[in-house]
Amino acid sequence: MRNHHTTFLCVVTGISCFFLGAILQQHVSIRNIKNIMNVDPYIFNCRRKLLFALALLGEKRKTGVSFTPIEPQCKDVDSVLGCTLFWFRLQCYKVFSFFFLNIKADEEQPKLSSSHLADIMKYGFPGLDDIRVYKSFVLSYDRRHRIAHWVCEHLRAECITTPLASDAPTKPSRGDQSIPVMFRATTQDYKYSDFVEGHLAAPNNYSCDTVQYNESFLLSNIVPQNRIMKNYVWQRLEEYVRQLTLKSGSVYVYSGPLYMPHRINFRNWAVRFTVIGMNTVAVPTHFFKVIISEHKNPGALPYMEGYVVPNAAVDKEIDLRSFLSDIRDIEHFAGLKFYEGVRRSMFNRP
Amino acid sequence: MRNHHTTFLCVVTGISCFFLGAILQQHVSIRNIKNIMNVDPYIFNCRRKLLFALALLGEKRKTGVSFTPIEPQCKDVDSVLGCTLFWFRLQCYKVFSFFFLNIKADEEQPKLSSSHLADIMKYGFPGLDDIRVYKSFVLSYDRRHRIAHWVCEHLRAECITTPLASDAPTKPSRGDQSIPVMFRATTQDYKYSDFVEGHLAAPNNYSCDTVQYNESFLLSNIVPQNRIMKNYVWQRLEEYVRQLTLKSGSVYVYSGPLYMPHRINFRNWAVRFTVIGMNTVAVPTHFFKVIISEHKNPGALPYMEGYVVPNAAVDKEIDLRSFLSDIRDIEHFAGLKFYEGVRRSMFNRP
Repeated sequence: MRNHHTTFLCVVTGISCFFLGAILQQHVSIRNIKNIMNVDPYIFNCRRKLLFALALLGEKRKTGVSFTPIEPQCKDVDSVLGCTLFWFRLQCYKVFSFFFLNIKADEEQPKLSSSHLADIMKYGFPGLDDIRVYKSFVLSYDRRHRIAHWVCEHLRAECITTPLASDAPTKPSRGDQSIPVMFRATTQDYKYSDFVEGHLAAPNNYSCDTVQYNESFLLSNIVPQNRIMKNYVWQRLEEYVRQLTLKSGSVYVYSGPLYMPHRINFRNWAVRFTVIGMNTVAVPTHFFKVIISEHKNPGALPYMEGYVVPNAAVDKEIDLRSFLSDIRDIEHFAGLKFYEGVRRSMFNRP
Repeated sequence: MRNHHTTFLCVVTGISCFFLGAILQQHVSIRNIKNIMNVDPYIFNCRRKLLFALALLGEKRKTGVSFTPIEPQCKDVDSVLGCTLFWFRLQCYKVFSFFFLNIKADEEQPKLSSSHLADIMKYGFPGLDDIRVYKSFVLSYDRRHRIAHWVCEHLRAECITTPLASDAPTKPSRGDQSIPVMFRATTQDYKYSDFVEGHLAAPNNYSCDTVQYNESFLLSNIVPQNRIMKNYVWQRLEEYVRQLTLKSGSVYVYSGPLYMPHRINFRNWAVRFTVIGMNTVAVPTHFFKVIISEHKNPGALPYMEGYVVPNAAVDKEIDLRSFLSDIRDIEHFAGLKFYEGVRRSMFNRP
């Protein structure tokens, strides 16, 4: 009788400790991989596959479609231990609020923290070439052309309304030390050229934070622009994006260069663009902005607009709406793929 | 007394089952991640970070430098269970061979299998844009230009010497179905142009295997080339690579397009290239081949050569050595970074 008792106790201890070991190992692995994910965009982009591979003892889970907005859902993104703790916190909070606060438990309940990268890249990566993560934007760098493929930012109304402190220590534009010296542009390249330094992520979007403001003066975020285009049309476009942010609260913007072909004779087309400086920095023929504006009600698809501005001395007074462009055309010429939201129809101009 | 005995037994069972659970969970995770790694080049490229994150119960291990040739070493690439099994197999083999075969245990001992991707990409990824894995080569696709950034192949002497079976079912060149239709070139694009379809990974390198041979006729491996350049200089360069393979046994080749700027007046340079067809497929101004030839003795650094051939009607009889080029120049204009082996010095031409 006593022997049976001992065997039973050992089996129970063994099985529970076995699962405890597996659960703890999974928790540690997932925590480590999430730490890497927050800084490495390539691992972040494969997160579903990876976390699927880390399922407890190979147990199968369903994977979602990869090209959807990223929303932290417990069953997708956490270990068994993490989920249990989260569920426990949620239940404790509900019981506590029911007995003592008598409020509806849906508001202000504990939330899974989503990372910095997940916040900016909510609508996906348009391309995967040399992605770099900064505090205020994520950037894909074109090593051949020494400027960005695209820069993605997330604008929030809170940050725009705060003006830049008058005594903030601002820095001038400078080379990006994180890029290998062979592929890096310098301020010297821009010095004796006919073009000025234009920003893809606009510094004025980050007037609330000096670090973010100064970061947008890195040369990886800067492109050679025509002076007149930069000072009038491009600036008005940036101002328009900020106004849109104040209206809708949260706006995502992808900005980047385009190299458009032009007809040279009956059947032949060619791409032609200048390069400046010792590092042969490319001067794009056009620039695009793809704007994703979120609805205040969380279920609705976001509204999207695309603008294409030629990199030339365009008329200062010209209406911004004449630069409206089909996002499919931007995708075609830039070789990028954007999110499929409610795209502004070209036949329905206001 | 009896009680102490039971407690002791339970603790021992508990601890061993705990570790067994952790070890099994780690083994399953690593096996799953390795399966993903064999098909996903981005996860493969971060493998050290990932496997480091999966260390047993967070135990710290040393990581190596990431830009070294990939060699399967047990402690780096496997779970604790996998390593134990491998060590066990090795010891069994040694004992067996010592007693029965009386041979030196170093030869033909069990080896860790390295994956297909690890084999081709032994010398690293020159760039990270849209990487695609095929049976005979790995390719980085330039969605903007509808041709490859680079194609990497691993040539082995065995495959080249076998001639293509005369009744092998060969396929003509065709669009690559794995590329989104918006960024895909078609045979129609090449049809009415002044350029012919040239191969980056040469089909004749794969005469031993019909599948690999046919794969090199996918349009993602094809670039618009000048007919005379293709039929003479490029073909001789491919033949030279095959001769080098027969001599050294194992050769890695990176091939790709270049878009070189030319001077337009005193201080200004520009890039200009034609685009053909409805899909605006770019016609590069030059092509490069970077050749990495391995020594027969495994410790030595590999020997590297770079060639740049203009995409124009170059003289048929011209010596291949006049196209020899500094690999740093190729890196500069292509925006790629190659392995640092023993590079052929330009001052020491034969």
